[in-house]
Amino acid sequence: MNIVMAQCNFKVGDFAGNTQKILDLMTEWGNTSDMIVFSELSVSGYYPMDLLDRPEFIIQQNEALQVIKKATLSCKSAVVIGAVTQNQWSGKPLNNALIVYQGGVEQFVYHKKLLPTYNIFDEARHFEPGMLPGTWLYQGCRVGFLICEDGWFNTQDPNYKSDPVDALSREQLDVVISINASPSNEEKVAERVSYVSNISRRCNAPVFYVNQVGGNDEIVFDGGSFAINAQGDVVQMLESFAEDVAQLSLDDINNLPVRPLLKTRPSALYFKQLVLGVRDYVEKCGFSSVLVGASGGIDSAVTLALAVEALGANAVIGITMPTRFSSKGSVADSFELCEALGVECKEVSIESEFAIGIERFEQAFGEPPSGLTMENMQARIRGKLLMAYSNHFGNFVLSTGNKTEMSVGYATLYGDMNGGLNALGDLYKMEVYALAEYINERAGVDIIPRKIIDKAPSAELSEGQKDEDSLPAYPQLDAIVRLAIERDLMSAVDIERDELQVASLEPSVVTSILRKMDVAEFKRRQAPPIVRVHKRSFGIGRRLPIAQGLGA
Amino acid sequence: MNIVMAQCNFKVGDFAGNTQKILDLMTEWGNTSDMIVFSELSVSGYYPMDLLDRPEFIIQQNEALQVIKKATLSCKSAVVIGAVTQNQWSGKPLNNALIVYQGGVEQFVYHKKLLPTYNIFDEARHFEPGMLPGTWLYQGCRVGFLICEDGWFNTQDPNYKSDPVDALSREQLDVVISINASPSNEEKVAERVSYVSNISRRCNAPVFYVNQVGGNDEIVFDGGSFAINAQGDVVQMLESFAEDVAQLSLDDINNLPVRPLLKTRPSALYFKQLVLGVRDYVEKCGFSSVLVGASGGIDSAVTLALAVEALGANAVIGITMPTRFSSKGSVADSFELCEALGVECKEVSIESEFAIGIERFEQAFGEPPSGLTMENMQARIRGKLLMAYSNHFGNFVLSTGNKTEMSVGYATLYGDMNGGLNALGDLYKMEVYALAEYINERAGVDIIPRKIIDKAPSAELSEGQKDEDSLPAYPQLDAIVRLAIERDLMSAVDIERDELQVASLEPSVVTSILRKMDVAEFKRRQAPPIVRVHKRSFGIGRRLPIAQGLGA
Repeated sequence: MNIVMAQCNFKVGDFAGNTQKILDLMTEWGNTSDMIVFSELSVSGYYPMDLLDRPEFIIQQNEALQVIKKATLSCKSAVVIGAVTQNQWSGKPLNNALIVYQGGVEQFVYHKKLLPTYNIFDEARHFEPGMLPGTWLYQGCRVGFLICEDGWFNTQDPNYKSDPVDALSREQLDVVISINASPSNEEKVAERVSYVSNISRRCNAPVFYVNQVGGNDEIVFDGGSFAINAQGDVVQMLESFAEDVAQLSLDDINNLPVRPLLKTRPSALYFKQLVLGVRDYVEKCGFSSVLVGASGGIDSAVTLALAVEALGANAVIGITMPTRFSSKGSVADSFELCEALGVECKEVSIESEFAIGIERFEQAFGEPPSGLTMENMQARIRGKLLMAYSNHFGNFVLSTGNKTEMSVGYATLYGDMNGGLNALGDLYKMEVYALAEYINERAGVDIIPRKIIDKAPSAELSEGQKDEDSLPAYPQLDAIVRLAIERDLMSAVDIERDELQVASLEPSVVTSILRKMDVAEFKRRQAPPIVRVHKRSFGIGRRLPIAQGLGA
Repeated sequence: MNIVMAQCNFKVGDFAGNTQKILDLMTEWGNTSDMIVFSELSVSGYYPMDLLDRPEFIIQQNEALQVIKKATLSCKSAVVIGAVTQNQWSGKPLNNALIVYQGGVEQFVYHKKLLPTYNIFDEARHFEPGMLPGTWLYQGCRVGFLICEDGWFNTQDPNYKSDPVDALSREQLDVVISINASPSNEEKVAERVSYVSNISRRCNAPVFYVNQVGGNDEIVFDGGSFAINAQGDVVQMLESFAEDVAQLSLDDINNLPVRPLLKTRPSALYFKQLVLGVRDYVEKCGFSSVLVGASGGIDSAVTLALAVEALGANAVIGITMPTRFSSKGSVADSFELCEALGVECKEVSIESEFAIGIERFEQAFGEPPSGLTMENMQARIRGKLLMAYSNHFGNFVLSTGNKTEMSVGYATLYGDMNGGLNALGDLYKMEVYALAEYINERAGVDIIPRKIIDKAPSAELSEGQKDEDSLPAYPQLDAIVRLAIERDLMSAVDIERDELQVASLEPSVVTSILRKMDVAEFKRRQAPPIVRVHKRSFGIGRRLPIAQGLGA
């Protein structure tokens, strides 16, 4: 039996576009294979969220399913797709389903049993857990099916009552097909392979793991679909962060050489993930060019470099917006950076608007604005200018705050936080530095000028200001906020490393940082979406009240 | 048996404050009653969201529970409270529990069986459904317990597999105690009474329904706790939108007169709900004064009036910020309004900042800003000024966009959308007018000047601009967006009324409005929290992707 793994980039709710992708691959592979496997919720893209509640969503999806079913009349292959079906029993009105079409007929249906409802996942909001058996007899082969989380039952930490793989493992299967929408984050590839090889060993059968690729809002799916033989070894792996297709014969699978699992260094993973996240979000929102406020600092430099990789230098513009507090370097370095990236850089002094803002404030309210007020004023004039450019020329604005700054609220709401997407909002400050080094290494030349990497971080919103005047040094600060945000998802080794960093600080400093983190929740609630790279990012995967008294 | 219904306003995560409230009521009622009943998750406040995942949350809660348990040593009464407990079996790590303490001992524990996971509710994210029986023998009485959703199994539309009331109804109960955190929205009181009287009839026992009161972020709980006799009639009802306590004897309950259910007109409900929502959010966030941009229009007028009712006139400031496009009336009417409300009104022309903004744009980018760009520029200068005032003087900014405008994106992100909370964001435009009329009627005088109510709505961002130049008339527009947002939650009568409104419009107009609604999703994602009054509001109860292609 020849099985095709079809790893596609679907757009949520774009039934016409997604169906066309599926039909194209059916045309290409439908007569030379026995089964073409698409990813979880392939017809709609993952995850439609509350679009699932709209009647037109179900109607349009079902029309798309009819088209796909009918198209199987003109190919030999069975087509395995992910789709939403109406629940026929009590409970939530929908199921997250796997459907097999062949010869113009629906041959088999399976419903996802384990519905992830934690972190970024909300499936119990929309779906009822499945009760149907996952085994299908096809061409004399016993095929077992799993949908994503079905393969992630964890005996050590059982979030669910029972393990769908238990049932499959008793069925003497010839092959297991797992369809997925598995987001990428640090260490995810190794984790996936470990879970799935365990499945192959328990079922004594090869497993084909087909994943979605592409960015949908804050979530980036890396693809990286793979096949594992019955001994639990990876024998095929598709591209990461790109659409890809591969065909494997079930008869050959045990003769294929084992592929070693390559470990990607974190910066390389972040780079690919953020580039795809930016490209897909901007394009799927209907934009073709972006705009970044260039401060001469490391965050805007890395954001510009990512944007260039995602969309091409011609689609990117930088604007540097100095005031009296800007160092000479901040403008000169921005120009040097943009030149190295091949990006147009505009300089617009905001000093006159800043000056008149101060003057008007004093006239209106009888006293000069405080230092903090003036700092925010500058950031907001810059934010306004970026949005004016965007309104007028149609460029999409990328904001630039990193995860550490977003944690402690070291960013101005309605100022430098302005934008449609934040590319760096899930990278701790030291990771931004590492990514800058990686970008230069990859380019073989310092496209991010060394002086941008080497200068002391400063918002340049007051005279001689440095970030470390009001915050601990970034390695320590990163450690505090990482432990606070991600501790329960970290390894013992990583926890120890961070705790060692934090140990060098006064406990009162740590407490004040934790307090700042809680207070800044109101800013994060109004922040643009952040491209996720870590296990827990700010956004839909972290839901906190704003008015709350814990530990205050 | 004497039962005390304790309807308190808890702050999420404020264990010290919440425990003190509980202890105070135990001191007051603990020796003259047999049972004091607090609401669902009373010790932590509802809903802690992902604070539930923080180890310190559980630690601090359990310390609070120890204090409460110990305090029952010095009172006669049993104390029924809502708290989080560790799940001892497989599944999610926590249960949403009801605990009974008496005589210093934990006497009984019950776990919520139906976990709402739709709209604003996220309980399956954190909790495992309960499996424990809900019946307890106390002073010779058979007491049945329910936690909120446990009483809302719907046989017509079963979102759950089984009905906890079925089990209770077989136990020959003497009384049912239901603890709740039931948010207020239109028609909720009648709905609650209908569900709960059904429970009393099925169990042939009186029911004590105890609800939380107060605003926690976007959700306002109205209290309105009540007791129902075994025939299903309401015999006691506590205050709405205020803390309240009442004691009832179980022996008397069937002799008490039946209380007719008073129907509140929508505007009166919205008024109470928004006033409490604003007051609690502002105060629970640690602020004592607010600031509203006064445009001379209806939305800012109603927002100012609500703020005055919530916090007192001395705690409220209005700022009117005219440009060349502002009508004379917009400033004069703002002053008249503020005078009627007893609120200080400041006038700050933003014309010079607007002029320099246009000039700088043209210098920098070689062409004058487009009409749309200039419109947004004005809104953003105003937004910046409000934030500068807030940064300097510490006033909390209330934004003013209504639900209709938020639907179609008729608001400037980082401009008039600026603020910590939006009080009107769940009221359709025509409801804002009705609320203005109600406020005047209630005051016995036009504290909102008639000319503000009567003028044609305009953003005054360009010459002679009127909302209805670019949008359908508000009654029709309201109908389109209401059907799109809330149709599945509306009655057949309301759907028919709105469809009649929409029928008078060209289909292409309707389509273009629906398209605007989808496109504006990116603005709403960055909007401040909105106080919820309808069944489906923008915010945590409506989760949509931004980059999506449905119907596009």
